Amino acid sequence: MKNDLLLRVARGEKTERPPVWLMRQAGRILPQYRAIRNSISGFKELVETPELACEVTIQPVDELDVDAAIIFSDILVIPEAMGLTYEMVESRGPIFPKVIETANDVAQLLKGEAAADHLQYVYDAVALTKKELNGRVPLLGFAGAPFTILAYMVEGKGSKNFSAAKKMMYRSPELAHTLLDAITESTIAYLKRKVAAGADLVQIFDSWAGVLSMHDFRTFSLPYIKRIAQALQPLAPVTIFAKDAFHSLQEIAESNCDVVGLGWTMPVETARAQLGTNKVLQGNLDPCVLYADLPEIKKHCTQMLKTFGCHHIANLGHGVNPDTPLDAVKCFVDTVKAFRYDDN
Amino acid sequence: MKNDLLLRVARGEKTERPPVWLMRQAGRILPQYRAIRNSISGFKELVETPELACEVTIQPVDELDVDAAIIFSDILVIPEAMGLTYEMVESRGPIFPKVIETANDVAQLLKGEAAADHLQYVYDAVALTKKELNGRVPLLGFAGAPFTILAYMVEGKGSKNFSAAKKMMYRSPELAHTLLDAITESTIAYLKRKVAAGADLVQIFDSWAGVLSMHDFRTFSLPYIKRIAQALQPLAPVTIFAKDAFHSLQEIAESNCDVVGLGWTMPVETARAQLGTNKVLQGNLDPCVLYADLPEIKKHCTQMLKTFGCHHIANLGHGVNPDTPLDAVKCFVDTVKAFRYDDN
Repeated sequence: MKNDLLLRVARGEKTERPPVWLMRQAGRILPQYRAIRNSISGFKELVETPELACEVTIQPVDELDVDAAIIFSDILVIPEAMGLTYEMVESRGPIFPKVIETANDVAQLLKGEAAADHLQYVYDAVALTKKELNGRVPLLGFAGAPFTILAYMVEGKGSKNFSAAKKMMYRSPELAHTLLDAITESTIAYLKRKVAAGADLVQIFDSWAGVLSMHDFRTFSLPYIKRIAQALQPLAPVTIFAKDAFHSLQEIAESNCDVVGLGWTMPVETARAQLGTNKVLQGNLDPCVLYADLPEIKKHCTQMLKTFGCHHIANLGHGVNPDTPLDAVKCFVDTVKAFRYDDN
Repeated sequence: MKNDLLLRVARGEKTERPPVWLMRQAGRILPQYRAIRNSISGFKELVETPELACEVTIQPVDELDVDAAIIFSDILVIPEAMGLTYEMVESRGPIFPKVIETANDVAQLLKGEAAADHLQYVYDAVALTKKELNGRVPLLGFAGAPFTILAYMVEGKGSKNFSAAKKMMYRSPELAHTLLDAITESTIAYLKRKVAAGADLVQIFDSWAGVLSMHDFRTFSLPYIKRIAQALQPLAPVTIFAKDAFHSLQEIAESNCDVVGLGWTMPVETARAQLGTNKVLQGNLDPCVLYADLPEIKKHCTQMLKTFGCHHIANLGHGVNPDTPLDAVKCFVDTVKAFRYDDN
């Protein structure tokens, strides 16, 4: 591989600068993405057509010169493969017309390999992208954490307080655990095939971890994330990003994961104090910093890089906002690429 | 005062049990509230009519036997008094038809006493409620923290990532500070008059603190909260509730505040370890625990009470969800009232 910087850092090597990529880099920030997106019927056509998914996955590597590509897809392909179709509604986000309410609903879902069988288009997209990248940079795969997927399957959409998902957890904990188990088995089968198709690292996104108390996170989320990490780590490095689970960073770091992702509210100093200078951390600039002018972005970014020190994969603390100016994204990437640890 | 338990705890006294109240207790969980609400034109009529605000404020004292009443009002009366009208849209929440974008928009706002002059209906509601309560329990007043109010004034509504508010903070920090200053001056004048009218304690709600990085919280939020607390503390005890500002609990506790409110994601053990056993803390059961069955609610609540120990005001970690069963709310209140620290 021509640029394996990210994989070397994930394996614990010291490098002269941190690698950099952005969550949602293959998306609306790029004019070439918007051009393709406007020429087709919708978001799902992009996800489900390997040639298109491949094309938009490689766009940020061409345009931004980032150190990794992340396969263009969605965490909601898993519930869909299990039997729960979603729709992507413009400017509102995903909607599930049918949601999970009863034990019978859960019993009817596919799980494990049977669910993973339905995602051939993802494996094809990964294999094609891997070939087209031709070793330029690593290709990242990903999946949602089981709690976050459960939340979507039960709520049917994003939520302010996730009261439907939590109702299930508090009123029918066995049902919640049965569903979490099915999602976990499906996700393991899915990620294994993604790695077999060519993904060089997998990231598990627990986007909604921050709505759980410490007790609930450790009961309903972390054990399932750990199972996935344990199953995948022999095959590829694993990144766990449980956004806003500030109370459980050590528990996450002690699981079978190579990289711990941090949201922007987690002070880097605190994370380093808890996890040590050798743990590989990913993050964590506030995506809204990219609304500032370029000198200000450079200042915030450099400060972050110095505070993390080495064993760091530079990224934002969450997905890049769709209305971020392209110049700002480039300034962020270029600042990281010009940085040297010797500069300290 | 017949029941001054909450005020004694706020002043640092040891008591035989913690006092209990709920954020949003005067609301949709009560059938008698829904009856009144359905008989009038809308939410704002309730807020702006002292006799109605008084009636719904006292309802939970009658029905739930809580240890405090909190004046029925809204944090958005402050931007309205400053010149920015809001509308309360059923099942969507508040909307500001006009938002703050420019220095000229900020310059046109009223501030300080001139803004507070427009809120006579609140002072009248407080005075009437104080008289009608006739010393049964303390009456709490409240206001939004300046950052949370700025976020509403700039976004015009709730938001997922508060990108408009943060754009202002990153692109025009002086403008953001000018607006925060105007909100702070208005809030101080307002809360002073609320105390003069009869509020026995004031709580400052920074509902959106959790979207800020530590640096931004300490730049754009905490300094203004501290100014309000400093101005009010000579007149009444002050509670600061900066939800999810887990990184700055010590800084909050060291300001002029008598009580620190905790959201449900903050582990009680961590808060006690950081702030000591003598700091008065308020919170912090996950509101969704009240979806569980009654024995489960009792178990979670008792566990929480034991972990806090004394110097604690029992509450949820955020407002009670409108669809919470009344029985569950009563179980929570009754569990606290039956608890004795000697039971440990």
